[in-house]
Amino acid sequence: GAGTDGDLYISQAVVFIEDAIQYRSINHRVDLNSLWLYRWYYSRIWQWILSLTITIILALAFIEKPSSLTVTSDVRYRLPAWNPPCGLTESIELLCFLVFMVDVSVKSYLIGWEEFWKNKWLMAYILTLIVSLTDWIVSLSFFCAEVVRIRRILRPFFLLQNSSMMKKTLKSINSTLPEMASVVLLLAVHLSLFTMFAMLLFARTKDGQQDKEWLVYFRNLPDSLTSLLVLLTTANNPDVMIPAYSKNRAYSIFFILFTVLGNLFLMNLLTAIIYNQFRGYLLKSVQSSLFRRRLGIRAAFEVLSSLKEAPANAQQSYVSIGALLQVLQKVEMDSRCKQAIVRSLKTYSCDQLSAAQFQKLFEELDKNGIKQHPPSPEYQSHFMQKMQFAFGHPYFGYLGNVVALANIISICVVLVMDADKRPSERDDFFLGAINCFFILYYLLEMLLKILAMGLKRYLSYPSNRFDGLLTVILLALEIATFAVYGFPHPGWRPEVMGLLSLWDMVRLVNMLIVFRFLRIIPNMKFMSLVVTTLLDLVKNLRAFAGILVVVFYAFAITGIMLFKGAVVPPGNTRPPFILREPICFKEKCDFMVLFGYLQDNIIYCLLYLLSVNLLCRWAKIYFVAWWLISSVIWVNLFVALLLENFIHKWDRRCHREPVSDIEYQRTVELMFRDVLEEPTEEELMEKLQQHPHLQLCR
Amino acid sequence: GAGTDGDLYISQAVVFIEDAIQYRSINHRVDLNSLWLYRWYYSRIWQWILSLTITIILALAFIEKPSSLTVTSDVRYRLPAWNPPCGLTESIELLCFLVFMVDVSVKSYLIGWEEFWKNKWLMAYILTLIVSLTDWIVSLSFFCAEVVRIRRILRPFFLLQNSSMMKKTLKSINSTLPEMASVVLLLAVHLSLFTMFAMLLFARTKDGQQDKEWLVYFRNLPDSLTSLLVLLTTANNPDVMIPAYSKNRAYSIFFILFTVLGNLFLMNLLTAIIYNQFRGYLLKSVQSSLFRRRLGIRAAFEVLSSLKEAPANAQQSYVSIGALLQVLQKVEMDSRCKQAIVRSLKTYSCDQLSAAQFQKLFEELDKNGIKQHPPSPEYQSHFMQKMQFAFGHPYFGYLGNVVALANIISICVVLVMDADKRPSERDDFFLGAINCFFILYYLLEMLLKILAMGLKRYLSYPSNRFDGLLTVILLALEIATFAVYGFPHPGWRPEVMGLLSLWDMVRLVNMLIVFRFLRIIPNMKFMSLVVTTLLDLVKNLRAFAGILVVVFYAFAITGIMLFKGAVVPPGNTRPPFILREPICFKEKCDFMVLFGYLQDNIIYCLLYLLSVNLLCRWAKIYFVAWWLISSVIWVNLFVALLLENFIHKWDRRCHREPVSDIEYQRTVELMFRDVLEEPTEEELMEKLQQHPHLQLCR
Repeated sequence: GAGTDGDLYISQAVVFIEDAIQYRSINHRVDLNSLWLYRWYYSRIWQWILSLTITIILALAFIEKPSSLTVTSDVRYRLPAWNPPCGLTESIELLCFLVFMVDVSVKSYLIGWEEFWKNKWLMAYILTLIVSLTDWIVSLSFFCAEVVRIRRILRPFFLLQNSSMMKKTLKSINSTLPEMASVVLLLAVHLSLFTMFAMLLFARTKDGQQDKEWLVYFRNLPDSLTSLLVLLTTANNPDVMIPAYSKNRAYSIFFILFTVLGNLFLMNLLTAIIYNQFRGYLLKSVQSSLFRRRLGIRAAFEVLSSLKEAPANAQQSYVSIGALLQVLQKVEMDSRCKQAIVRSLKTYSCDQLSAAQFQKLFEELDKNGIKQHPPSPEYQSHFMQKMQFAFGHPYFGYLGNVVALANIISICVVLVMDADKRPSERDDFFLGAINCFFILYYLLEMLLKILAMGLKRYLSYPSNRFDGLLTVILLALEIATFAVYGFPHPGWRPEVMGLLSLWDMVRLVNMLIVFRFLRIIPNMKFMSLVVTTLLDLVKNLRAFAGILVVVFYAFAITGIMLFKGAVVPPGNTRPPFILREPICFKEKCDFMVLFGYLQDNIIYCLLYLLSVNLLCRWAKIYFVAWWLISSVIWVNLFVALLLENFIHKWDRRCHREPVSDIEYQRTVELMFRDVLEEPTEEELMEKLQQHPHLQLCR
Repeated sequence: GAGTDGDLYISQAVVFIEDAIQYRSINHRVDLNSLWLYRWYYSRIWQWILSLTITIILALAFIEKPSSLTVTSDVRYRLPAWNPPCGLTESIELLCFLVFMVDVSVKSYLIGWEEFWKNKWLMAYILTLIVSLTDWIVSLSFFCAEVVRIRRILRPFFLLQNSSMMKKTLKSINSTLPEMASVVLLLAVHLSLFTMFAMLLFARTKDGQQDKEWLVYFRNLPDSLTSLLVLLTTANNPDVMIPAYSKNRAYSIFFILFTVLGNLFLMNLLTAIIYNQFRGYLLKSVQSSLFRRRLGIRAAFEVLSSLKEAPANAQQSYVSIGALLQVLQKVEMDSRCKQAIVRSLKTYSCDQLSAAQFQKLFEELDKNGIKQHPPSPEYQSHFMQKMQFAFGHPYFGYLGNVVALANIISICVVLVMDADKRPSERDDFFLGAINCFFILYYLLEMLLKILAMGLKRYLSYPSNRFDGLLTVILLALEIATFAVYGFPHPGWRPEVMGLLSLWDMVRLVNMLIVFRFLRIIPNMKFMSLVVTTLLDLVKNLRAFAGILVVVFYAFAITGIMLFKGAVVPPGNTRPPFILREPICFKEKCDFMVLFGYLQDNIIYCLLYLLSVNLLCRWAKIYFVAWWLISSVIWVNLFVALLLENFIHKWDRRCHREPVSDIEYQRTVELMFRDVLEEPTEEELMEKLQQHPHLQLCR
């Protein structure tokens, strides 16, 4: 009947508008029950449960058996890590799997059977779940004593598939792979040709004393290859060339050629390729988000327009304002935005909205970037007005910066003077007294600013929030110090009382003061440009960071599985080197596997492993792969994004002057506002026609 | 009279056209004598003398006293370097100074008095000459025993001022400095804040065993600053964090934050800034070259048009073809180009050329990019035609590549098998025999190709020239081997005879074969793209390389002066470290100062110097400055240019398909052909009106 149809259309419109707000695809089932399920699936609660589950399953690695997460990493001092009983982590895992199974079934149901077969991510999701469950059963049947746990390497997949941004980014990276592979191939050719050259150049001579170079670096093919590969990372430069160079200076030409060609040309070529590929990446992704938003709004318009009993052959379709108001009531969205839409709806005299008007109404959604600071309070008294003028003036802020700088300098002076003193000789009086004075000034500054600006306006500036919070913490610490240790006086050196010693308290206060000094950043034009660029970058990098976490996790788990116990063998064939460095080495690799973050750790470990010749070839391949992915590719991706962001920002800097009281929220959407293209009506309608579940009347 | 005027105008036109060809400025004196002097100054001979003089004066450093240029760099083995008698290098220097004095006077005269006062480069040139001469006199009056030679540091200036490209590049770099300075300031703030944090975090504790971190890296302010500065270059990573990390894993957060902020963000920001600044650099420079060319042609047109006795009030000025032919006879230019211009002149029926026609004639100059290969010979005999088809076919080239690959593999196999054998155990028969076979094949290939293509066409391909040259050298080497050592047979291991042992001969042959393998590059599409990009880059980088040489030279001379004798002191306060590493250390610094080419050498030396605490603070400043300039700024400049070049190339790759028989010469001008803007008539005329010496009639 018309009533049920009306309900259905209204629900559809609600969901489509919500899709538009969240930039979601509208290609899902649109019958009443599915719509209810869909809204439930994307409700905050279910998404929160899902994220929590992913976090838990990833965090399991920190308490599972071969983990070494203890406070100290020194194997001599550290306590044995806590070993959870068999079945504990396994039952947590089962719970997580159950959540994922619900997730995958709802998702598959919602996109429909036909779409399901085209969606490789969903298939992979199901496959991963099946493999994980099988592995889990095997694990339990061995009472947790099985050798390999495949499901651990698969865990990061759950993180990957849950984020559409990450999937998109992965697709982009994937399309760059052929070109990257070409450069890597070039690198390989470069490496192998130079290896052959090196083996011919530094061959064993009859005079045994002269061939140090051959002995250490170019003894055979794998050694030579490794030496030059490590030289490519500059980790063994210039050691590798010293023996040859000291024999004949001309040998350095070989190494210089190799490094210039490999490091300067080929490695930077990789940067160029990745930058070239990712130049339009951000713009394209923002463009497709815009398309999804317009499509969602248009779909809502279309279903609402079929609600009316207007003649089907009318030239243009219309939506009644009443229906839209009904829909708006049910839509979950930012209340400020909703009010703005309702307000502008009331200005329309006619009851009918055309498609263009309908789109225009929802452009309010794009406008959420401008934020007005609340006004300052208006004082009646003349004295208060003068106070307000004085302490609301930027110069008062600058004075605060100068005082903070003075504080920093005083701390620095004390540090330099106390640098070589033993803790028992240190006199904490001076530092205690000046810090006390400075913190009182900070408190005064905060109060005066609140007086001048009013609490609301004060808190609306992020720099003030940062400032105020640190001031309050500093004050609390100072009060606690005085409460425990009394007021400072010369020769003030009390014993440890309570949780922290006086020295620790003072150190903490000082660190917070150094941290507070960062408030000067917004006052320096170039610095604030850089900092905002970096903040933007962090936002845009979330997807990349996610992928990095996935790769790190997989590598760490593989590493733990591969090198479990192999790193510190009890008895070994080559004792001298092992005996000298076992603990240190264990530490470093351990460190790298869990927290490794830049290429150097890897290279360090690689060097150790190779010189010790401890592990098989697989270790080499593992580390080279790690170096390529974590350092070469990821760092280049980062540079590409930074270039993109920064150049865009830099170009725009000249165009607009920041309006004093209006603060732009830095979203990517706003950054590209000027260059985005609105999708045309035809594109939207064509896309709507292709919707797998929605049959439009027209 | 009219005759003299006519001569003057013709000479002016000749010089202006030559200016246009060489992209030179036309702002010089234009009377007859000056023109003669100008042509003489820019003649090949004088420019060649000037370059030679600059080379000689720069090369003097290699034979002057504190130089250590010997074959081996090992102080234990090397002979004392040759010490030229006092007065030898000095008289060579004087000769060079005389040449420079002639150069600067001619240059100053030619641009005219007014322009001279505006030209800071010329003033600096004169000043440098005066200082150098004064220093030279001081030097001679001390009989070469003076302490400091200032003129040596000034020498690279002569190189700098002689190249307009380098001056332009320096101006570009100069305009980027403020922004670079901002980032460097940010880096300094970052460094100092983190240093304070570190000193507070890793302060000396009461428990002496626990503060390894404090003891080694953060003992006082300079130590802490240095530790973190070196961490910024990643040279002491992860050593610096190991003591703290082994105490508590949480300390690694500090180091990770520092490295991510400093290395990943701020350092790459520098890349972004430099790239942003240099994005338009190439285009701008090509654009201004184009403007100079058009301006020169236009100026020639204007002076030639005042030659005619046409009514002065005619609407448009014309040039007679006869006058132009007269000018063309005297102009020094590419003969092919000249012929093309004369040929198209003859197609004009009217005797008068308008300005547009005149410009059009000289567009031939821009077209020198297309090169036609000579045709293959046409054989009469059917058999020869078949031969020609077979051996001219690309597949024959591919077969050659496959054979070269097989040769490489065979060498590789022998190398792997012989890797651990002592020289006396080695049997050279196998390698000798297969190399003999392969070289015969290469000879055959070359001959057949010449047969199929004809010698001229064969030599017109650079890949064939490369191939043929190597084949001839290989053949000569092989014949020499057989002549000296006889034909190979099993157990073929003769004694050393003549200059090289058999083993050395075989090694040389093998190296050449490996080198010859590079002929596969043009056959692989992506590789050839990369290689052509690199070649372009090398062309565009000449100016940068020149500046780098200037900086290197200045740094090397300063370093030699600063650390002369200071590096290996006979008795020292801290013997253990010095005793262990003095020779090695001396070598490394020595190496760095003369040939240092990447940051790592610097860091290596810096680390040594700092840990030894041998030299004063000045050494630290010297090395940090060196690191900033050579590694950070120059490498980033390089990356910026590479990005620019590569992205441009990459974008164009899709547009044009290479025509098989026509080869484009890769000049920057051609690369930007599509985006260059032709200067308008008004711009040209305005510039001509501003000419300081030329009074145009109109």
